[in-house]
Amino acid sequence: MAPPSLPPSLERVATELMRLPGVGRKTALRLAFHLLAAPREDAEGLANALRELREKVRPCAECHHLAEGDRCAICGDPGRDRGSICVVEDSAAVLAVEGTRAYRGLYHVLGGALSPLHDVGPDDLRVNELLGRVRSGGVREVVLATSPNVEGEATAVFLARALKPLGVAVSRLAQGLPAGSELEYADELTLRRAFEGRRDW
Amino acid sequence: MAPPSLPPSLERVATELMRLPGVGRKTALRLAFHLLAAPREDAEGLANALRELREKVRPCAECHHLAEGDRCAICGDPGRDRGSICVVEDSAAVLAVEGTRAYRGLYHVLGGALSPLHDVGPDDLRVNELLGRVRSGGVREVVLATSPNVEGEATAVFLARALKPLGVAVSRLAQGLPAGSELEYADELTLRRAFEGRRDW
Repeated sequence: MAPPSLPPSLERVATELMRLPGVGRKTALRLAFHLLAAPREDAEGLANALRELREKVRPCAECHHLAEGDRCAICGDPGRDRGSICVVEDSAAVLAVEGTRAYRGLYHVLGGALSPLHDVGPDDLRVNELLGRVRSGGVREVVLATSPNVEGEATAVFLARALKPLGVAVSRLAQGLPAGSELEYADELTLRRAFEGRRDW
Repeated sequence: MAPPSLPPSLERVATELMRLPGVGRKTALRLAFHLLAAPREDAEGLANALRELREKVRPCAECHHLAEGDRCAICGDPGRDRGSICVVEDSAAVLAVEGTRAYRGLYHVLGGALSPLHDVGPDDLRVNELLGRVRSGGVREVVLATSPNVEGEATAVFLARALKPLGVAVSRLAQGLPAGSELEYADELTLRRAFEGRRDW
């Protein structure tokens, strides 16, 4: 056996980085070499930030988005419309909707989508918590913003059925052609949904 | 101004990750979300490994490859051929050559390549250290394994001129068609070099 050509501490950083999604050995080594060459503060800053991350971040008690105290920044913002709840699968989706600056209500992070294939049922998601929030009053509308794929659609259908008896307006994000795209490159399902959802002008 | 929709400690991890090459905000957030969802040990393991990295790793006193003590694992290996030095630009190149398992000599890490454009001259590289190693005796051959691009070629030409008067055999890695490639997709320069370097069969 040839001895390893890398110092153990570098091997260890590479191994740890390889746990990250989309990071293989080559990328991990490239990142590790970069951290070795960069100012010492870069590696230390990242190390400190990582340590703090898991200590401080927890789910918001209200919507389950990421928070540092009891409530996330959105639930704690008095300027948000508390009568509207946008239901998303995860926190990444909260960021995506926030990025539009088109929505000023609150969120509800389900923690995934229904998926019989992966053995994810309603009890594995924060469905009861959502129904509880609606039942506790003051909620006017629920926007179902789960992903436009099989699992997200199934989740939206399931939630709509559970929510409607509670007397709130339930809507689903529009599906159709992506902005800036060309019609000839749209897949059949997207184009069909764009037709189904066409609006009078 | 809307308040940020992410907790500060998550923002900080994202900011630190964005210092890494090839990591934009979207990737940084994806990695941060992953670290939040993964076992706590993952983030802590990475944090600890990063901290250790900069404390322990230093350049090898002999070849300047990465080491944890005075000497790197390669220079410290009694099984290596000490009469042969392979000159590379950086430690990533050492790993690449080691990966071939075709070379059993030592290395010399220059720390870059000559580049008038980026104001890198011979004094910015470990050229004198290389000449010193050759002059101190026992070196039979030097293999110039700088990159086959403009800077690497210039560096190889410069080093060959400096080394030859010292009475060592100097060679340069072959250039030609990459293994497993198809001739019709080779660029002109590669194909020309493949012709220039053709070997009798």
